[in-house]
Amino acid sequence: MKRSGILNAELGEALATLGHTDLLLVVDAGFPVPRDAHRIDLALAENLPDLRTVLGLIADELVVEGVVRAEDVPSHNPRLDSWLHERFSGAEFTTRPHAEVLGELAREAKAVVRTGAFEPWGNIGLYCGVDAPRWFGGEGVVVPEQYASKV
Amino acid sequence: MKRSGILNAELGEALATLGHTDLLLVVDAGFPVPRDAHRIDLALAENLPDLRTVLGLIADELVVEGVVRAEDVPSHNPRLDSWLHERFSGAEFTTRPHAEVLGELAREAKAVVRTGAFEPWGNIGLYCGVDAPRWFGGEGVVVPEQYASKV
Amino acid sequence: MKRSGILNAELGEALATLGHTDLLLVVDAGFPVPRDAHRIDLALAENLPDLRTVLGLIADELVVEGVVRAEDVPSHNPRLDSWLHERFSGAEFTTRPHAEVLGELAREAKAVVRTGAFEPWGNIGLYCGVDAPRWFGGEGVVVPEQYASKV
Amino acid sequence: MKRSGILNAELGEALATLGHTDLLLVVDAGFPVPRDAHRIDLALAENLPDLRTVLGLIADELVVEGVVRAEDVPSHNPRLDSWLHERFSGAEFTTRPHAEVLGELAREAKAVVRTGAFEPWGNIGLYCGVDAPRWFGGEGVVVPEQYASKV
Amino acid sequence: MKRSGILNAELGEALATLGHTDLLLVVDAGFPVPRDAHRIDLALAENLPDLRTVLGLIADELVVEGVVRAEDVPSHNPRLDSWLHERFSGAEFTTRPHAEVLGELAREAKAVVRTGAFEPWGNIGLYCGVDAPRWFGGEGVVVPEQYASKV
Amino acid sequence: MKRSGILNAELGEALATLGHTDLLLVVDAGFPVPRDAHRIDLALAENLPDLRTVLGLIADELVVEGVVRAEDVPSHNPRLDSWLHERFSGAEFTTRPHAEVLGELAREAKAVVRTGAFEPWGNIGLYCGVDAPRWFGGEGVVVPEQYASKV
Amino acid sequence: MKRSGILNAELGEALATLGHTDLLLVVDAGFPVPRDAHRIDLALAENLPDLRTVLGLIADELVVEGVVRAEDVPSHNPRLDSWLHERFSGAEFTTRPHAEVLGELAREAKAVVRTGAFEPWGNIGLYCGVDAPRWFGGEGVVVPEQYASKV
Amino acid sequence: MKRSGILNAELGEALATLGHTDLLLVVDAGFPVPRDAHRIDLALAENLPDLRTVLGLIADELVVEGVVRAEDVPSHNPRLDSWLHERFSGAEFTTRPHAEVLGELAREAKAVVRTGAFEPWGNIGLYCGVDAPRWFGGEGVVVPEQYASKV
Amino acid sequence: MKRSGILNAELGEALATLGHTDLLLVVDAGFPVPRDAHRIDLALAENLPDLRTVLGLIADELVVEGVVRAEDVPSHNPRLDSWLHERFSGAEFTTRPHAEVLGELAREAKAVVRTGAFEPWGNIGLYCGVDAPRWFGGEGVVVPEQYASKV
Amino acid sequence: MKRSGILNAELGEALATLGHTDLLLVVDAGFPVPRDAHRIDLALAENLPDLRTVLGLIADELVVEGVVRAEDVPSHNPRLDSWLHERFSGAEFTTRPHAEVLGELAREAKAVVRTGAFEPWGNIGLYCGVDAPRWFGGEGVVVPEQYASKV
Repeated sequence: MKRSGILNAELGEALATLGHTDLLLVVDAGFPVPRDAHRIDLALAENLPDLRTVLGLIADELVVEGVVRAEDVPSHNPRLDSWLHERFSGAEFTTRPHAEVLGELAREAKAVVRTGAFEPWGNIGLYCGVDAPRWFGGEGVVVPEQYASKV
Repeated sequence: MKRSGILNAELGEALATLGHTDLLLVVDAGFPVPRDAHRIDLALAENLPDLRTVLGLIADELVVEGVVRAEDVPSHNPRLDSWLHERFSGAEFTTRPHAEVLGELAREAKAVVRTGAFEPWGNIGLYCGVDAPRWFGGEGVVVPEQYASKV
Repeated sequence: MKRSGILNAELGEALATLGHTDLLLVVDAGFPVPRDAHRIDLALAENLPDLRTVLGLIADELVVEGVVRAEDVPSHNPRLDSWLHERFSGAEFTTRPHAEVLGELAREAKAVVRTGAFEPWGNIGLYCGVDAPRWFGGEGVVVPEQYASKV
Repeated sequence: MKRSGILNAELGEALATLGHTDLLLVVDAGFPVPRDAHRIDLALAENLPDLRTVLGLIADELVVEGVVRAEDVPSHNPRLDSWLHERFSGAEFTTRPHAEVLGELAREAKAVVRTGAFEPWGNIGLYCGVDAPRWFGGEGVVVPEQYASKV
Repeated sequence: MKRSGILNAELGEALATLGHTDLLLVVDAGFPVPRDAHRIDLALAENLPDLRTVLGLIADELVVEGVVRAEDVPSHNPRLDSWLHERFSGAEFTTRPHAEVLGELAREAKAVVRTGAFEPWGNIGLYCGVDAPRWFGGEGVVVPEQYASKV
Repeated sequence: MKRSGILNAELGEALATLGHTDLLLVVDAGFPVPRDAHRIDLALAENLPDLRTVLGLIADELVVEGVVRAEDVPSHNPRLDSWLHERFSGAEFTTRPHAEVLGELAREAKAVVRTGAFEPWGNIGLYCGVDAPRWFGGEGVVVPEQYASKV
Repeated sequence: MKRSGILNAELGEALATLGHTDLLLVVDAGFPVPRDAHRIDLALAENLPDLRTVLGLIADELVVEGVVRAEDVPSHNPRLDSWLHERFSGAEFTTRPHAEVLGELAREAKAVVRTGAFEPWGNIGLYCGVDAPRWFGGEGVVVPEQYASKV
Repeated sequence: MKRSGILNAELGEALATLGHTDLLLVVDAGFPVPRDAHRIDLALAENLPDLRTVLGLIADELVVEGVVRAEDVPSHNPRLDSWLHERFSGAEFTTRPHAEVLGELAREAKAVVRTGAFEPWGNIGLYCGVDAPRWFGGEGVVVPEQYASKV
Repeated sequence: MKRSGILNAELGEALATLGHTDLLLVVDAGFPVPRDAHRIDLALAENLPDLRTVLGLIADELVVEGVVRAEDVPSHNPRLDSWLHERFSGAEFTTRPHAEVLGELAREAKAVVRTGAFEPWGNIGLYCGVDAPRWFGGEGVVVPEQYASKV
Repeated sequence: MKRSGILNAELGEALATLGHTDLLLVVDAGFPVPRDAHRIDLALAENLPDLRTVLGLIADELVVEGVVRAEDVPSHNPRLDSWLHERFSGAEFTTRPHAEVLGELAREAKAVVRTGAFEPWGNIGLYCGVDAPRWFGGEGVVVPEQYASKV
């Protein structure tokens, strides 16, 4: 068996295929996953697994430079929003209308991970980053401004 | 065997993949199911199974917040329309031109369940909802207006 | 969304395809699932989801007439064994050598449900039954001895 | 739409691929359909569709020269047995141990049609025949003894 | 074996999937069948099977409410046109430019049945109908004008 | 279009994959084609296409060195047997019990071509040969005895 | 084995699926075959097989009514152009900009046959025709002007 | 991107599907990988990647309780053998005849990872273990003798 | 085994399908490979294999007439740029905005080869050429101006 | 395009997957290739491509340590046998009964390459070897006797 990390083979493989700027959607149990999306269904029962546990496991293994969620989250689900800011402290936070999360973002996502969460607007987009220090450490590489702080 | 509920494996699986705002079409035996639709063919013989039985079985297992049907149903098949209003009492009812049911809605549907119904305009679209009370029950969650009544 | 029951589409579908005498294996995270088995991977992290939760959810939806587990369970994991006897009180309990659970039973199983359980011999085989009373209630049906008690 | 006959596309196609001596299994909702069988799942709810309706629809479209069922049917489900003898009056009737119906016959069957029947030993094997008169009507054809009666 | 009707399994299945307004193209041996069309190739040799035989077999099993063919047929292949009018007497006849038959209609068709016909413009589109009397016979159903004559 | 020869793409391709000693089965409409056979279904209606027409078209394009048919053909369908001897005059003729044609030969065949024939024991096995003169014409090649006559 | 004609099974099958106006591209070894084209790779080594041999074999089996090639061929590869005019004497010759051959025509082609040719602009499009005399020979058929000469 | 660990998505997924007693083969560039094996081809050029690097990366992520290699390794490639004993210090070491590594073990392996190694008998079988302490830590669990040392 | 050249079967096959003007992308470990791209994942660990090694192996086997990279490479990763100019000395060099490399070029590429490179903008597009001397050497071929220098 | 070597993508890939002791069959146009073999069809017309050309191209790219052919080749096709001994001078030569080449060897082969050869017993099995010097050159490696001569 694997010594550590995420046990789920399909989720692990999906994380390994993500590249810089790719979008991974981690959603609640009621998300309308598009038919042609790469759908990873971990949902079993109400809040099993819950949204925060799955997001936490992914945060441990994936470099995340951006977090996008429905506009309603800051206003109508503030506890989730503060948890997100804490767990993905280095990331850039943005919002999108709820309808676009279900529409545009769902079609853009490289994979959609379905949790058992019964949570309003519990659909969080993670934009992947790269490990800046190790990326820009090469000899003669000039670090562009937007990465300077990270390097 | 399963203790209860819908016996059909493919239909059961389709219901489990539906999310909020997803459209499920339950149609009569003469519906032109698009080639690339997810076609679940339960039709066997005339009105076997009939439309109302299949809709009833699905209503027992699926949260439905909207019902769409051809404009002709209220006017030309009133008995079906009253049955629908009764069976999906909490849902929002809308109509679409018959041609759009066969065209746009058929392409939008996550799955098309074919019954044996020999019934004019016997093609009913079910928009999935979520279990509002359980969805908005979390601590600190502010229930938006449109869900207040349901919570 | 589904009103109730198991949320996972693939697990729900697998249960719906099980028939009388079919074997469903619910296993721990370290089980050697054969390459050509129908593998349903719900494992996420250590004991998430745990064995008893998954078994309980399945017990709610599936008629189980037999439970088979490694010989080591009664002797070396008695707490698990007593839980099993309690949860599947009507079922017939048998044991098999651990190697046969990993070998013969794994090949025989209609599906193998992988949990996150870190539990020794946490691999439980469920033999499906049928709802005897409803099966043998037909007019003129003579109930055979082995089902008399159940009917 | 089709003018008449079985509406179900997959069942219709299966019947059209059957040849002389091929076995078609029409089973109850609890039958353990082998994983690699050609499984046609018409089951929806308890006894919907029921065994006799499906068998009757098939009998209208398929030449059947043999009917095989579990030994228990004549003795423990006599009403079903008499219905079978009446509906397939020209066929040769045989029995097999129930375990072999679930085992050997299930593997031999060209297709397994699952009904909603909740009926003990409701698993009926139909051996296909050919339309003897039209088969042996050619010029100079010598009709072998076993077909003489049919021609 | 099947007692009667079309023997070809793939053609039989295609007919069973057709719904109201669906288009079935029955074409000659030289038709440019699009790569992603559902291509049912019955062609064997010159005029084996011929166009009229295949159309006749289909007409026996399918409700056809419309027939479309190239403009050239009435003018340049009048014998074929009169045969069509006779065989599909109840249908509505339309024409389209030959290029559109090869283009637009070929892409729209649910299936393209290739015969062995060596016949100019031997490409006939059949628009499926429904069995109006059985469709509009339900209690309280108001028959719309365009179907009154058929009911 | 092809200038000449068999029009059917799948049949043409199958003939092109046949090599020396390969078996091609050309069968009547009632043949029990095994599920995993390469099934080429040309059957449309009774004796359309008939057995002799299909065999003749194949004989024009394929080198056949052996013909096998059920023992019953010489005795009970002599007209078919004489036609075969005439059409495949150079081939070696053998017989097999009817059950073996439906069993062993059906499993051995590289492809099974289904005609519309309603003909008793209308199942003919063709063993492919090679064009001996062109095969053994190379410099220094010693023609083995069994081919001497053919070269 | 096949008695004569093209030995390659995939190429033979492709030719048999071509209909009137379909485009077949026969290209040199360096052609950028689109990822979703039907790619038939016969290339083995430099000019093995060469362009003219493959074109000749196809010309023997396919009715060709049009030949399209890059504008550069008449001007910069005149020997190829004269060979083409001689081998496809009855066809209508057109040219297209080289970029369109690699782009538009490559996407339009029903199949792309890759040879081993090392020949500049060695990418020849063949538009399929039909055997006009056999097509327009039917009783009462009025031959349109553009085919009169061919009939 | 992934923060750490093996970058290759397919290899990562394979490791996540391995269970207790499963065999993973890590082989040199010349290994005859069976056609139906799960073949993960990382080979690029001679010794790129080399055997030890790949084995080391896997050892970091996989619990290995057994190492099997050809009998020839201890005798004819002692440096490789000592490296293996050092890197997999806790594992049980066994040997098999070289032919069985290429035969039986290759068929048994859940996956075969091909490196660029140009190394004699560079084909190493890793038998997966489980994390004994975490496995047998549950309340009331009696640790069997063979695991006592590991717990 | 292969005597020489790239060992990886999938990479070797991809190179063999490339034609003139086709684009091959060789990218770093963090590249967002589109879901429907032909993804060849050679990445194993940080800089294993590194970008230059993979590019070098490909340069040995592929005729490259153009190199495209992000605008940032000449300015911010000059060492990589000079290495590229040296290794692909005959090619035409162009740049594209980094976003277009990740977007447009990624969708255009015939295949995307993922290395283990941790290198900023380490995503290099290779436009395939043809071996001009061997291409334009034929009798009577007029070499166009743009190739004169190469011939 | 590839700079050199075999142009055919599928053949190139097959060679790259071959390992030590793997069998590659290169056969004449009349070989009965098993249905489930990996069939690479290069045949176009009589002796195009011929057997020796294909074998030669493969010999340039593949390490071959063994050649097996039908017993009849030395006795009845001596010119082919002497050519083989010359072209594969380092290999070990064996023979098998012709029937076993068509049977056992055809099933064992990793791939079957079909040429256009019209040559009696033109079916040659190549057993792959490894580049012994580079394989056994590692430090501390003890070269076994059977490879000593090759190293």
